[in-house]
Amino acid sequence: MKIKVDGQTVERRAVWWEDGKVWMIDQRQLPFRYSEVSFSTPAEVGQAIKDMVVRGAPSIGVAAAYGVALDLVCCEQLFTENEMGAFLEETFQALNTRPTAKDLTTALDIVGSTIQKVFRDEGMERAREVALEAARWFDNETVRSCELIGEHGAELISDGAKVLTHCNAGALAAQDYGTALAPIRKAHEQGKGLFVYVDETRPRNQGARLTAWELSNEDIDHRIIADNAAGFYMSKGEVDLVIVGADRVVANGDVANKIGTYEKAVVAKENGIPFYVAIPWSTFDPGIASGEDIPIEERDDEEVLTTFVELDGKVQRLRCSDPSSQGLNPAFDVTPARFVTGYITPEGVLTAEDLAKRLS
Amino acid sequence: MKIKVDGQTVERRAVWWEDGKVWMIDQRQLPFRYSEVSFSTPAEVGQAIKDMVVRGAPSIGVAAAYGVALDLVCCEQLFTENEMGAFLEETFQALNTRPTAKDLTTALDIVGSTIQKVFRDEGMERAREVALEAARWFDNETVRSCELIGEHGAELISDGAKVLTHCNAGALAAQDYGTALAPIRKAHEQGKGLFVYVDETRPRNQGARLTAWELSNEDIDHRIIADNAAGFYMSKGEVDLVIVGADRVVANGDVANKIGTYEKAVVAKENGIPFYVAIPWSTFDPGIASGEDIPIEERDDEEVLTTFVELDGKVQRLRCSDPSSQGLNPAFDVTPARFVTGYITPEGVLTAEDLAKRLS
Repeated sequence: MKIKVDGQTVERRAVWWEDGKVWMIDQRQLPFRYSEVSFSTPAEVGQAIKDMVVRGAPSIGVAAAYGVALDLVCCEQLFTENEMGAFLEETFQALNTRPTAKDLTTALDIVGSTIQKVFRDEGMERAREVALEAARWFDNETVRSCELIGEHGAELISDGAKVLTHCNAGALAAQDYGTALAPIRKAHEQGKGLFVYVDETRPRNQGARLTAWELSNEDIDHRIIADNAAGFYMSKGEVDLVIVGADRVVANGDVANKIGTYEKAVVAKENGIPFYVAIPWSTFDPGIASGEDIPIEERDDEEVLTTFVELDGKVQRLRCSDPSSQGLNPAFDVTPARFVTGYITPEGVLTAEDLAKRLS
Repeated sequence: MKIKVDGQTVERRAVWWEDGKVWMIDQRQLPFRYSEVSFSTPAEVGQAIKDMVVRGAPSIGVAAAYGVALDLVCCEQLFTENEMGAFLEETFQALNTRPTAKDLTTALDIVGSTIQKVFRDEGMERAREVALEAARWFDNETVRSCELIGEHGAELISDGAKVLTHCNAGALAAQDYGTALAPIRKAHEQGKGLFVYVDETRPRNQGARLTAWELSNEDIDHRIIADNAAGFYMSKGEVDLVIVGADRVVANGDVANKIGTYEKAVVAKENGIPFYVAIPWSTFDPGIASGEDIPIEERDDEEVLTTFVELDGKVQRLRCSDPSSQGLNPAFDVTPARFVTGYITPEGVLTAEDLAKRLS
């Protein structure tokens, strides 16, 4: 993704491998301070995922993949097969610090099974190399998937379209291009005029802080709105389509995504506005039959009782609510498939029925 | 309303007349600092309405009523009938600083016509007295209406009910009891166990700051949620009913209220949850046929780009969004009557048809 830092434009992914460490853009400090941080152990990467230094399902998956590589590349022991199994299990536990994003376990499964196969067939030395290769493959595959999502999704955006998006399903959330933002980036690249309503996305303001920052970096016309205002613009006929990302899409097409997605989907349907969910295959979870069975993360109520604000050039969390009150903070909700017009995937724009067919 | 200040509980209305001045609780500083401010001219009161020292349709109405009294009580001139008309017109203009709340013009109409009648019949001296009497009557009538709303509305709340409310339609917004909060206060007084989901209500956080503060003062069990989470709890069957206030209800039952109300109403209907709008008659505007014709206030986008937070014991507005981005800030939306289960009025719980009958 393009990032404007100190008057210069640089190219970065959300997470990368460099000098034997896992690096991340510190998304908690955006948009007020751009900084890059590095981690040397899977436990540190797991904590960074939990603390949301990195967030967004696909980027979390890539961070986890590099986290596994980190452990193997740095480890100088020679394992037996049982020891390798236990070692990976422990690494996975250190990394698996958030429950809702499917990509996290997708990444651990892919990288883990690749390592174990190579370890059995070719031994420890080669397994170490392959750990990093598998993580890099997963990273590049994520980016390639997002670029394809962008190409397919851009066909849904006509010149002059007004698009609404919720949360940040951008390059920060998916290494590059983004999921929901990929079609917007592609349409903009293609020279289509378009306008983006950016839901601020309380409680963590990923829309106002991150999506708006990405769109500013790319000079794409947009305005930040309170989450409450999305329905207003939909009812006025001022939204042509809604595109969101997802943390998990299950077999029947139900979608777990950032809290508030469900409301937008219901109101979009009420107003006859197409509602699209953009996902790479790593987000798809055919192992869960319907949305009711998706684990929903309940996060600390401090996130609701406070807001991230800029103070002295840094992001700080200050109280924005009655000091005697407590909050509730479900981080995700489930949008039933009947509210989803289509799933923008690397293979094209599919229906829930198409997704089901893919399973058979 | 009961207010806990420095360990003591005091009784206050949102707006009151004392020593020839209009006093208000400064709602901008709540819940972090309790303070009372006074105003000596209609222009000052109009500015206070605009700056949202006082907000909430009925309280705005009362402030406007006392604002007119202020001008007449302090004015030592003796007017001709034409002069009195021009004088009142100027006063009204100074006070009429927000477009959506019907109660503001209701108050100006009632107090203004009372003054003019008495002025014609009994002269200037008596008109001065009557200006204050009419304002006091409007104030007390608002409180009495809210108490009746509370009594009727409490019948809708069964023991153990979970109620969701949006924005602050509490005592702060309506002098005492509140509109939406009146049934909640009454049900609590009646010893019913109940639980309130408080939408934080971005961009100005009237839910998180004011409704939560009022419920804390009354020891009513509640939790603050992100506006985005309302649909989540509705879809989980955890909300038994929704009660909101209104800034204007028009002839066909369409409701203008705080931005986000429309979304809650649509999602409530989708989930079969009753959605009630609590209003005194001063909020009812039979002169407008349908919601499309209600003037919607667009406020400064700074409200969306910043958040009110506590810093050094005061409310301050700090940036919570990308510094290069702009926002859009419609302050109200319109909920069509078909989403409203009933209108909780001083005369009972009515349907849109009942409202229409009242006109004929």
